[in-house]
Amino acid sequence: MKGKNGEANRDRDVFRYFSVKIALAQINQTIGDFQKNTEKICSYIDRARSNGADLIVFPELAITGYPPKDFLDIPAFVEENLRVLDTIAQKATNISAIVGFVDKNKRSYGKLVHNAAAFIHDQKIISVHHKSLLPTYDVFDECRYFEPAHTVSPVKFKGYTLGISICEDIWNDDEFWKRPLYETDPIENLISNGADIIINISSSPFTVGKHDKVRLPMLIHDATKYKVPLVYVNQVGGNDDLVFDGNSTVINARGEHIAQAAAFEEELLVVDIENSGVLVSPATCTPIETVLKALILGLRDYVLKCGFKKVIIGLSGGIDSAVTAAVAVESLGRENVIGVLMPSQFSSQGSIDDAVQLSRNLGIAHKIIPIKDIFETYQNTMKPEFRGLPFDITEENMQARVRGNILMAFSNKYGYLVLTTGNKSELAVGYCTLYGDMSGGLALISDVPKTMVYELARYMNRGKEIIPRNSIDKPPSAELKPNQFDQDTLPPYDILDGILKSYVEGAMSVDEIINRGYDGKTVREIIRKVNRNEYKRRQAAPGIKVTSKAFGSGRRMPIAHNFMC
Amino acid sequence: MKGKNGEANRDRDVFRYFSVKIALAQINQTIGDFQKNTEKICSYIDRARSNGADLIVFPELAITGYPPKDFLDIPAFVEENLRVLDTIAQKATNISAIVGFVDKNKRSYGKLVHNAAAFIHDQKIISVHHKSLLPTYDVFDECRYFEPAHTVSPVKFKGYTLGISICEDIWNDDEFWKRPLYETDPIENLISNGADIIINISSSPFTVGKHDKVRLPMLIHDATKYKVPLVYVNQVGGNDDLVFDGNSTVINARGEHIAQAAAFEEELLVVDIENSGVLVSPATCTPIETVLKALILGLRDYVLKCGFKKVIIGLSGGIDSAVTAAVAVESLGRENVIGVLMPSQFSSQGSIDDAVQLSRNLGIAHKIIPIKDIFETYQNTMKPEFRGLPFDITEENMQARVRGNILMAFSNKYGYLVLTTGNKSELAVGYCTLYGDMSGGLALISDVPKTMVYELARYMNRGKEIIPRNSIDKPPSAELKPNQFDQDTLPPYDILDGILKSYVEGAMSVDEIINRGYDGKTVREIIRKVNRNEYKRRQAAPGIKVTSKAFGSGRRMPIAHNFMC
Repeated sequence: MKGKNGEANRDRDVFRYFSVKIALAQINQTIGDFQKNTEKICSYIDRARSNGADLIVFPELAITGYPPKDFLDIPAFVEENLRVLDTIAQKATNISAIVGFVDKNKRSYGKLVHNAAAFIHDQKIISVHHKSLLPTYDVFDECRYFEPAHTVSPVKFKGYTLGISICEDIWNDDEFWKRPLYETDPIENLISNGADIIINISSSPFTVGKHDKVRLPMLIHDATKYKVPLVYVNQVGGNDDLVFDGNSTVINARGEHIAQAAAFEEELLVVDIENSGVLVSPATCTPIETVLKALILGLRDYVLKCGFKKVIIGLSGGIDSAVTAAVAVESLGRENVIGVLMPSQFSSQGSIDDAVQLSRNLGIAHKIIPIKDIFETYQNTMKPEFRGLPFDITEENMQARVRGNILMAFSNKYGYLVLTTGNKSELAVGYCTLYGDMSGGLALISDVPKTMVYELARYMNRGKEIIPRNSIDKPPSAELKPNQFDQDTLPPYDILDGILKSYVEGAMSVDEIINRGYDGKTVREIIRKVNRNEYKRRQAAPGIKVTSKAFGSGRRMPIAHNFMC
Repeated sequence: MKGKNGEANRDRDVFRYFSVKIALAQINQTIGDFQKNTEKICSYIDRARSNGADLIVFPELAITGYPPKDFLDIPAFVEENLRVLDTIAQKATNISAIVGFVDKNKRSYGKLVHNAAAFIHDQKIISVHHKSLLPTYDVFDECRYFEPAHTVSPVKFKGYTLGISICEDIWNDDEFWKRPLYETDPIENLISNGADIIINISSSPFTVGKHDKVRLPMLIHDATKYKVPLVYVNQVGGNDDLVFDGNSTVINARGEHIAQAAAFEEELLVVDIENSGVLVSPATCTPIETVLKALILGLRDYVLKCGFKKVIIGLSGGIDSAVTAAVAVESLGRENVIGVLMPSQFSSQGSIDDAVQLSRNLGIAHKIIPIKDIFETYQNTMKPEFRGLPFDITEENMQARVRGNILMAFSNKYGYLVLTTGNKSELAVGYCTLYGDMSGGLALISDVPKTMVYELARYMNRGKEIIPRNSIDKPPSAELKPNQFDQDTLPPYDILDGILKSYVEGAMSVDEIINRGYDGKTVREIIRKVNRNEYKRRQAAPGIKVTSKAFGSGRRMPIAHNFMC
């Protein structure tokens, strides 16, 4: 538990007469692409040296990319990362560097590797620092791979004593958090061992509001508490479902915010740690702007890191596919986005018009492939089996699956990546068709609740109308049977999203949700739907995480169960 | 690290003149079905009492079912489990009980819950024992949820001192294992604190060979080392991808195997701990028999616990669908299995005949739905887009997706669960179609390598021909274009499976695999395919784990990466 060892430092003079220039290398790596990752690290080292930096700091696991997941279990992967570290050390002439890498655990027990930072000086690895606190919740699985640090030690550098920490190590202050998750506080230990600058190398993924409301206040709190400067270097870029937002930050020993790198972009930020003025107005975004930027970056990186160039999207005329296409255009350029309209006999002329209008607004190519013939042939083929039975969800799903097959045919023929267009609210309650509209490589907005999809649409229309107003204003419909509307079977989306947020993000019980003012029958019905539809989500494409609790790797539920709250 | 505190016990007399009857309750629970789980626990308590047992021991997390996964993050789930524990304590009259449950962590830091065992005596919870070692590898995520035990203490019972431990607690002996995974050994600590019987409550999933080759020798080693009896109670039953094999075991203080419950079945096994004879020939199965039993149980529990009754399977005439259907019949009864033949112009008459013959051999209903018309309509619909381009993988996948849509139509119309039929070798290299033959709720044999599928087929034919011999003997083909055979693009399956086992289960490097005698180009090509096809597996249905490393929850890989060994 917390000791009082940090106290001694609090009285010392917080400013010095000499100084040091630190370069924050906020880079975007590709997991396991050792060649390109090394090249990028070396080029940032060169740039930092040219900028007169004394020390360059790279993010957590900069060499491998984060999260490398079970590649960590493959010894050849770890060996390659160690070879790369040696190469980088050789290149670090006339500058010191802190580089995130995977270290081997040399003890006779425990996990085989550590999440580590190397301190490189005079082209030598002077010291290695292991991560103490291993996040194992939500999307994080670090106890799966890493042995925690057994001790933490600061390291001397140009008259300073650097306290090198890794990501979660800085997230356990018992004054900042109501309930710390870990028994020890590595930052407190570093300070009590004499650290007078805290360095934190991170791979901290984006969720809406996290940087401004939690991360930055926490960093300021720590620097203020210990009266030391704090240099926080975060990864940037998308890796599957996670988008790392950058926002690398420097706080001075007075707790003042003196520098911040861009959000959602690579940057080399060189900061004179003692002699920089306070940021008067750090660039800030509204929450919906950050969500949009996260989606844009997450999509671009998924497409490029997977080796694709173009994406194809089924356009229904509804708001979800419209927003998906509009984000894709901002992310990849209009020449890399293809829209496909696949009208059936249940598609309204209005929907077709809206989809065509959207394509025109975006300037993307669009194709129209009516599904009537294929759907009829299916129905004829199945007639001997289904004779006398009414049109039901079977035929609804059948249409969605015909569309999925057509999109995948384009994907297979031309190498386009299919984007699915479902939102979080639908995915939560299973209002979507497996192998139908769920077909695709990336579910771009599957962590965006429907009400936030509307917000995105309105925001994207701020300058001029991109998303046709009709797609925003009309009552949402899957158009899989005559006169079908989402609200025939679902509560209004503001109510649905309120209940879903309480249950999925808040882990609240039925009673707690009802106490927030929702109807009991509705709450129970929605939670039952969420719990029952895990099987669909298990087979869903990955989506870009923007909320505090996304479906996918951060929410692991059994399929076979009988818990209904 | 290991101390020598256990030594003192080794000299004492290992047998006593009084004794105790312990009932091992090897039960099959449903996750979160608190009502049924409670009823089952109470009925086993009644049966054990009738059998004169002094103590009944239930498996790990018997109240909630294992693994409850992120339900553990929902406070209402934990509260309900605590209410149930109180109910059970009330019912335990004239018998003591050890019951696995989720306890709250009462400290001011750390994870919110413990994986726990309650010792109930005289209808009171006398003591609670927390799990010390939390497996966080492969399919296990326990550090995600649980705070480890801070201390371990044995408990007095009828002249004995029970050392109560939970699953992983017993898997860290530094003499048995070359490299222990944890620093401490809770069994050693219990012994040094005076325990003279070790109780271990487990939820230890099946993999082929695990019980006979690892678990049982390890239990015997521990009892022998400490000269104490050891009572090991394992869960039985299927939960999603995991099958728990039971095989609950008692070893006496001489290290002799005195009792073992059934494999893959519920059982109440009552054992006089001091006065039982040695098992002369405990029932054993061959590896392939255990795989078959695991698949049968895993399928049955998935179907029933998800609320289904019947399954439907696309029958191609090939060995994979034949084995899937044959297992389904053994699991669910022939009246609950429906076969569907969906021939195209590329299907050979031989394949159709084989599928019909299989249906006759199994006595299952079968339907024939030719896909020619639908496939042609797709091709006509896409003609304006694909004009002049050759027939390629697009049209191959299209056929597979037509079949997927038909099977899902049956599923939607009649409430059948679709079983997919792909094997592990195909899934590894991506020789399968997303939203095509991968459509379905459970991928029954997706952890069974192709060579093991052949073994299963031959084993199932041991009495009479169930799987048509032709399905076994003919060269495997997807029949999605003329004269197509698996070995056009894949190495022979014995070579493929050898490479896959080395890479997927063994985590070997390219060089290590080549050193085992495989061709370098082939090895690189196969590993590249495995790494590139993660996107398909991410959207695959869950399969039944039978090997030491199954795709799915036990193997977590990034999709966007560039690691090619």
